[in-house]
Amino acid sequence: MSEIRIIGLEGIPEIHAGDDLPAMIVAAARSSGATIEDGDVLVVTQKVVSKAEGRIVDLATVVPSPFAERYAAMFEKDARQIEVVLGETKRIVRMQHGVMICETHHGFICANAGVDASNVEKTGTLCLLPVDSDASARRIRAAVRSALGVDVAVVISDTFGRPWREGHVNFAIGLAGIRALIDYAGQHDPAGYELRVTQMAVVDELAAAAELVHGKLARVPVAIIRGVEYQRADDASTAELIRPAEKDMFR
Amino acid sequence: MSEIRIIGLEGIPEIHAGDDLPAMIVAAARSSGATIEDGDVLVVTQKVVSKAEGRIVDLATVVPSPFAERYAAMFEKDARQIEVVLGETKRIVRMQHGVMICETHHGFICANAGVDASNVEKTGTLCLLPVDSDASARRIRAAVRSALGVDVAVVISDTFGRPWREGHVNFAIGLAGIRALIDYAGQHDPAGYELRVTQMAVVDELAAAAELVHGKLARVPVAIIRGVEYQRADDASTAELIRPAEKDMFR
Repeated sequence: MSEIRIIGLEGIPEIHAGDDLPAMIVAAARSSGATIEDGDVLVVTQKVVSKAEGRIVDLATVVPSPFAERYAAMFEKDARQIEVVLGETKRIVRMQHGVMICETHHGFICANAGVDASNVEKTGTLCLLPVDSDASARRIRAAVRSALGVDVAVVISDTFGRPWREGHVNFAIGLAGIRALIDYAGQHDPAGYELRVTQMAVVDELAAAAELVHGKLARVPVAIIRGVEYQRADDASTAELIRPAEKDMFR
Repeated sequence: MSEIRIIGLEGIPEIHAGDDLPAMIVAAARSSGATIEDGDVLVVTQKVVSKAEGRIVDLATVVPSPFAERYAAMFEKDARQIEVVLGETKRIVRMQHGVMICETHHGFICANAGVDASNVEKTGTLCLLPVDSDASARRIRAAVRSALGVDVAVVISDTFGRPWREGHVNFAIGLAGIRALIDYAGQHDPAGYELRVTQMAVVDELAAAAELVHGKLARVPVAIIRGVEYQRADDASTAELIRPAEKDMFR
């Protein structure tokens, strides 16, 4: 019987700038008795990665531009917060209903360029996405391999809204050791039909699955997923997930 | 330690129009020895639901409209296939690069109105979405309750593309016994910050998680997910997942 297990890793403390998150994940695995096995996928929420990497901005240090001031006034928002979002933005995709859908420097398209005020320790601070979330994932993978001698995949997850559908889901914003997409093109279904454009975004499915144990209020920022078939790859990158502009219909 | 299990239910045979799918799921659980427990979530792929409900169209019976003919000629497509897609479509959201993004009569926005040629038994036939996928889910839930005496949630999943991101993921197109969204608005994170617009689409996360055992080529159309906290609701509907047009920025 095929079975996948999603195990919440207990014992990660509150994370502060400069903390060695990869070492803390290894320590939590050891102290909680959760084994980490070869082929496991560790899904780590963006928030703890960003905090450890010091990607926190104190609003008191932000000077908003006239553009940010004007937009903020229209929607009764904090102009400094708008300025921080603009600082993380390569291009604005939509500005409607007081919502900013932004393309980040990584190429992700998401609300507020991933800038977020929840689950930060101090009011008046904002959390930004990691500068290079694949590199963040690679550091965790390397630490696990070095400390525990096992090869795992690592996915950094963040909460995304979607056009047309209410509610958020977690998707991948960083990865290491796992190909982002599984490509079935050219393979045949049981009836002999050749599958064409069927690429599954397995890392997004892993991120979504892990959210079921992360929760929004529980302090379980790391999930171990066991039993998933995936394609190992040392050179994998979330760049594989970004649809080129010329193929995209909603930019 | 929090743990979620995703168990592939073995032993579902090839499904044909008129098959009693709910009864077959119960039979597969009994014969495979997979227990179904109170509070489990059954995730069932759209394809088997549609087949059992006879939602298969033989292309030989389709007469394409002039519009379908003209569009098909532009992109070297089968005009009859375009006609079937149009028949399932309430409104076309985009028609570009030979791709049709359609709003279905249910209100879902997806490629080709969910019409699909893979994993059907006979070449030259197409599979349509269930007419009322919440009703399909309710029938499965009722059959499990009646035969096994347990209350489960049921999610019908289908494969969706997304704007901006490559690869597909499974999302929910039908549900029973489970609230689609978990709303954290007004609750506080561990630092005391009040969460605002944070609604998680838990049924979409369940659908994505289950795809990890469904696979594209394996014949595992039903997954049992155990250990998930969700809000039980007899009156739940996927209508909760559909963003109203006036709040949507990408129609």
